[in-house]
Amino acid sequence: MASTPSHDGIALVGFDADDTLWRSQEYFDAAQAQFEQILSAYVDLDDVLQRLYDYEARNIAIFGYGVKGMALSMVEAAVEITQGRISATDIHRIVALAKTLLQHPVALLDGVHAAVTAVAARYPVVLITKGDLFHQEAKVRQSGLADLFRRIEVVSEKDPPTYARLLEEFGIPAHRFLMVGNSLRSDIAPVLALGGYGVHVPYHTTWQHEAGARIDAGRERMRTVASLMELPDAIASLDAQARATPLSTQETAA
Amino acid sequence: MASTPSHDGIALVGFDADDTLWRSQEYFDAAQAQFEQILSAYVDLDDVLQRLYDYEARNIAIFGYGVKGMALSMVEAAVEITQGRISATDIHRIVALAKTLLQHPVALLDGVHAAVTAVAARYPVVLITKGDLFHQEAKVRQSGLADLFRRIEVVSEKDPPTYARLLEEFGIPAHRFLMVGNSLRSDIAPVLALGGYGVHVPYHTTWQHEAGARIDAGRERMRTVASLMELPDAIASLDAQARATPLSTQETAA
Repeated sequence: MASTPSHDGIALVGFDADDTLWRSQEYFDAAQAQFEQILSAYVDLDDVLQRLYDYEARNIAIFGYGVKGMALSMVEAAVEITQGRISATDIHRIVALAKTLLQHPVALLDGVHAAVTAVAARYPVVLITKGDLFHQEAKVRQSGLADLFRRIEVVSEKDPPTYARLLEEFGIPAHRFLMVGNSLRSDIAPVLALGGYGVHVPYHTTWQHEAGARIDAGRERMRTVASLMELPDAIASLDAQARATPLSTQETAA
Repeated sequence: MASTPSHDGIALVGFDADDTLWRSQEYFDAAQAQFEQILSAYVDLDDVLQRLYDYEARNIAIFGYGVKGMALSMVEAAVEITQGRISATDIHRIVALAKTLLQHPVALLDGVHAAVTAVAARYPVVLITKGDLFHQEAKVRQSGLADLFRRIEVVSEKDPPTYARLLEEFGIPAHRFLMVGNSLRSDIAPVLALGGYGVHVPYHTTWQHEAGARIDAGRERMRTVASLMELPDAIASLDAQARATPLSTQETAA
């Protein structure tokens, strides 16, 4: 094509939820510490949590993400790590850990309400979160943020095909979409790969499974901010950058 | 309004999945029978399954629907019913039941592929299923039917607000929507309540939780068929009925 029409800018902003809008990983970490403590009555091992992670990672293909799958992996790991010596009462405590995790109050991170409100005043916003449908919906309801989002999408995996499907449903091309989240692997890398934009908000603790993604392409379409309070400025900067980018370049990226 | 514009007919057909397109409840029934058998080594009770159901019903508010929540309820029920006497090995067998349930091959019911294909040739079709996101998506993938559906929606509850939200997302008014499913409670009653249409396909076995719904209103907008092979005719009949209904009547119903 001879002409290079200019880019129309960001048309939709997606937010991750766990550890982006509200605290999550530390509740999982606390549950795992209690699991380790329960097992310490049976075995003297310094790698209980690594073993648990191995069970969880192996079971993700069967259970998917979320508290209930983690709890079932914990029960399985507890039986096998203790070679069947764990008591029914202690297994009951593991199920109780899951119930506590599923019912903890939603604690918004600092500045989240103001930041999402500010972004929602300029762009349509959607929530895109991975994990257990029922638990995620409960947290969205309790967050007080539900009305700010046009759509709440709970997905089983956050990979390029999932984002591509959602964007098709939303009717938005990838080069006009910006995703905000704490996970490079789940929130940023797949959106950059499709030609979109990303704002990374690192969280102070990251699940082993989400850590260590490599950004292969599109790093110039990404910003990193220390907290959501810096989000509106980061989005404005990427939006300006998008509008200054010839559309043909965007299409090549997508 | 003086004019009564005529109805434009059915514009979208929704299908339930479990026990409508493929076998499901009998796998749950088999898992529960094995649960009863495991517990029979510890207690001599004739109401183990009723007790299990009581745990499941109480935990639905925390776990939601699906295999993983059922498995955690089974573990909890097993510990409490045996008063802590159940062995870790037997609890491991309960977790294994869940894994088996999550991995059983998808067995389409008779005539499903032909019926869905026939309906999809005349109307856009969507899949609307309740339960565990990860498990439902796995079953849809394995079913070989995914490409026939415009959208796959996994929801946490099938009530009138959920259907209303989905129809808004689809851009379809309730009086142009027809839902096909085996559960009066989840598939038919809420859609009739919104002013839509329903085709009930009873299944030979029904979970206690889904049984016994009352159709309060809209019974005239519902058909019952013995199998999906009768579905295209039932939809054609309801579509003709819809087109013959003055729109003002529809709007009153909605």
